[in-house]
This record gives sequence, structure tokens and C-alpha cells, in this order.
Amino acid sequence: MNRIERHAVFQGWQDVYQHQSQTLGCQMNVGVYLPPQVETEKLPVLYWLSGLTCTEQNFITKAGAQRYAAEHGIIIVAPDTSPRGDDVADDEAYDLGKGAGFYLNATQQPWARHYRMYDYIVHELPALIEASLPATQERSISGHSMGGHGALTIALREPGRYRSVSAFSPIVAPSQVPWGQKAFAAYLGDDQEAWKAHDTVELLKSASERLPLLVDQGLADDFLENQLRPELLRAACEGTGHPLTLNLRPGYDHSYYFIASFIGDHIAHHAAALKR
Amino acid sequence: MNRIERHAVFQGWQDVYQHQSQTLGCQMNVGVYLPPQVETEKLPVLYWLSGLTCTEQNFITKAGAQRYAAEHGIIIVAPDTSPRGDDVADDEAYDLGKGAGFYLNATQQPWARHYRMYDYIVHELPALIEASLPATQERSISGHSMGGHGALTIALREPGRYRSVSAFSPIVAPSQVPWGQKAFAAYLGDDQEAWKAHDTVELLKSASERLPLLVDQGLADDFLENQLRPELLRAACEGTGHPLTLNLRPGYDHSYYFIASFIGDHIAHHAAALKR
Repeated sequence: MNRIERHAVFQGWQDVYQHQSQTLGCQMNVGVYLPPQVETEKLPVLYWLSGLTCTEQNFITKAGAQRYAAEHGIIIVAPDTSPRGDDVADDEAYDLGKGAGFYLNATQQPWARHYRMYDYIVHELPALIEASLPATQERSISGHSMGGHGALTIALREPGRYRSVSAFSPIVAPSQVPWGQKAFAAYLGDDQEAWKAHDTVELLKSASERLPLLVDQGLADDFLENQLRPELLRAACEGTGHPLTLNLRPGYDHSYYFIASFIGDHIAHHAAALKR
Repeated sequence: MNRIERHAVFQGWQDVYQHQSQTLGCQMNVGVYLPPQVETEKLPVLYWLSGLTCTEQNFITKAGAQRYAAEHGIIIVAPDTSPRGDDVADDEAYDLGKGAGFYLNATQQPWARHYRMYDYIVHELPALIEASLPATQERSISGHSMGGHGALTIALREPGRYRSVSAFSPIVAPSQVPWGQKAFAAYLGDDQEAWKAHDTVELLKSASERLPLLVDQGLADDFLENQLRPELLRAACEGTGHPLTLNLRPGYDHSYYFIASFIGDHIAHHAAALKR
């Protein structure tokens, strides 16, 4: 990993690393916050998955998470949201192609070659982080919107791999909403059976592990009724008895102002699980 | 004032207003954070002046100040850094013209018509804020880099107008460094006597009010030796007995990561003065 940015923040370091991803077949940037405790010990890692149109920069510059990570002694790894580069397939729309990887392995052309964000997030990136940085193998995962979808689906598909999971404004039922239907049709094809493996509401039906879900959702979010639909998550959890804390926040929208307001609560939640 | 953005954050509202400035002869954007206490009372105001290239967006999206403003019950007003619009004079360089108003009233052409940021910040904007929002006339002022210069010079030139002043990485002696010399020659002309009225180190020689200065400066700041020169501020304060708290922070650079790390301390400082 080649360090391309380093900034002191809250007595630790906000770094950005660049590395060649074997999984994605391209060069990737990843934000890493190292709290001051890394001077003396290995620390657990919270993976943060960002939403549509984001790069590794949005979360690290706007969420204000470093203060809480420093308080709790947690590394935060914030990767980009898709493969990048001139030879990577793209689409003019903001919700397909670059910036819109949806944290799955694409099976359809022209996407299948590079769009393997699931394997990148679950396997290649943690192996790299744990080999290169003072990180333990204790992991938690969170994210926003498309990244909230990524965090929930990955945690449900990988029992035992994450100590805790949370999400802000997640796309909980991509098979039932426009963002997800468009992306899944392109990346996974028309057979909707294949979509179920990347749909939180579907995965909850067969979840083997009762990892509690912590979800915050703003009630002034422009995407609430058409794309996010937290009521489907609540019904799915109630249907199977899956533990869910769903905080509906009046007045809050889909922006990083919302994330900044409650990221401290989420990091405390993850810290409690990671330091257990 | 026409509200063009509103986001809930830390139980208050991060707004952006647009208004026609009589002083600047153009339309201006201004960020305003209203903490939750405005529901029941009028609150004092901290003015934040941003640095070169910034708009009203940089501080409100990156500094994480809203949390502390909510804790202390302080409104934060974050204006743009220069006049804007197609008929406003500009320069291709990042450090002259739009985004580089230097918080003075220009006397030279082609700048004199619109570049009157001193009068805008000191007179027009507070009058507008105090008439339109639940704000008292208790004011403090702070800023970063060019905006740190603005905060310090304005506070020193306007005794009694501000309860407290602070700065991050300020240009303390613009008459002696390249950024200031270029901008002052363009805006104020070649007579360096006129520059002294906008130079913190010069103003300290005749300051009639002993308003304490709180300054934070990162020691890994790329502009430290060539543009910022905090040693000149220390010498000027020592020379006249002006109270100065100068925090030199090892490892910190010129970015908003630095501001985010210490803005809580600055807001606590202003809150103590504003609520006295």
C-alpha cells in the first residue's frame, strides 16, 4: 500500500492509501483513520461503506468520525465505492457503474471483469489491512445508503466475520426499489433469484446468526419512500425475530449532516462489540 | 434572506441563505448554524471567516463545529470569502480575486467596486443576521488562514464590537509575506502605509483594547515559514504586552482536519466570553 495522504486529526492520522487490487483489476484508494492508540497496540477495525457517487473522500472529510474513533481506539477503513480507471466499464447515470458498485460480484457483461466489490470488501481489503497496519482481526461494518445495503448484506452473508453491523439510511430491499432493480438487472441479470443473495430483507429470512442490526434513518430523507423503505426492514426483522434497533429521526435528511449527528452513537455501538 | 439549504444536524439546523448584498453589489451565500436552543431564546453569534479558495460550504461541511455550537448554544455564521458573480473582477490565480477577498475594502481598480468584504463582514452581514434571525448583538469572530487574518484584524480594528477572537493558522503579517503582498498591492495599491491598517502585527502596535488572542497553528503546515510566521505574532504581542495564547500543534497541517481537531476548544473559548 502506497500512502498518498496523511493528515493529523484528533491526535491520530487520517491516511489515504493507494494499492493495486487483484480482485478488482485496478488501482484503488482507501481512507484509513489510525487513532493515537496504534502507537502502542493493535486495534480492531470498523469498515465503512459509502453511498452512490462517493469516493473514499466523502466519509473521511465530512462525517467527523475521527473524534469518536480516537476516543474508543478503533481504526476506520473507508474504501471507494467501485472499481476505477479508464478501462473500467461505466455508465453515464450516477447510479450505475463507477461510484455505484453495490458491494456485489457482477456476473453480467460489461461489468463482470472489474465489478467485484463483494470479494474486495470481504476478503482482499481486510487481508491487506491486517497484514500492513497495526490491526487485529476483530471487524465491524457500517455504511450509508448503498453502503448501508452493503454493510447489512455482507454481515448477514458472512456469519462470524463481523462483531457488529450498523447502517445509516440503507437500501434494505434493493429488489423492490428503483436503485436496486436497475443495478441488479445490470450486474446480476434478469433472474431475480440471484438478487436475493444481495437483498437484506431476503437474507433475513434465512439468517443463521442473530447479529443485532442498528439502523438510523432520517424522516426528512428525500429517498425514504421510494428507495429506502425502512418499514420493510422492520417487518422482515419482526417476521423472523431478528434483533433490530431502528432509530427514525425526525427532520434529518440523506446527507452527511445526518451521519455526523449520529456516527458517535454507531461507533460506541461497534466499540462495545469490538472490545468485548 | 432566501433560504436555499436546510439540513438537520446535532438537533439544530445547518442553513444556507442567499441575499443581495448592497455593500458588495452582488448576491452572496452565507452558512448559518442554528442550534436547538433557538427554539426558545435569542443566541449570540460566532462569525467564521474562511480561507483562500473557500466558499461558505467548506467550514459547514468539514469542520464538525455544529456539535460544539449545539452544546454551547451559539449560532455560527460562515460567509463566503469574496464577492461573486459574472460581473465581479477576478484573476486566474487562486490567491487574488474571487475566493480571495482578504476581508478589506479595495481602493484600486478593477477591484474597488465589489471587493468590500470588510464592510460586509463588520456592518452589513451582522445587521442582516440580527434583524432576520433569533440572534443577539453579542458577537465573536474566528477564521482560518486568510480568514484568521480577517478575524484578527477586524477584532483589533473594532474595539468593543467582538467579545472574543481566535484564529487557526492565520496570516499574521500580510505585509511581510507573498500572499499578503500580492493581494494588498492589487487591492490597496503600492503605498504600504495603507497596508498597515489590515496587518495584525502592525495593528497590535496601537491596539486600544487588550482583547486576548487565541491562535492555533499546526507545525506540519506547508505554509508555516513562508506565509504564516506565527513568531511575528508572538513577538508583536510580547512587544506590547498584548495577551496571546499561541498553541503550536506538532504534526498538524493546514487542512480542515486540523480545524476539526481543535474547533471545540475555540468554540468553548468564545462561549465563555459570549455568555459572560
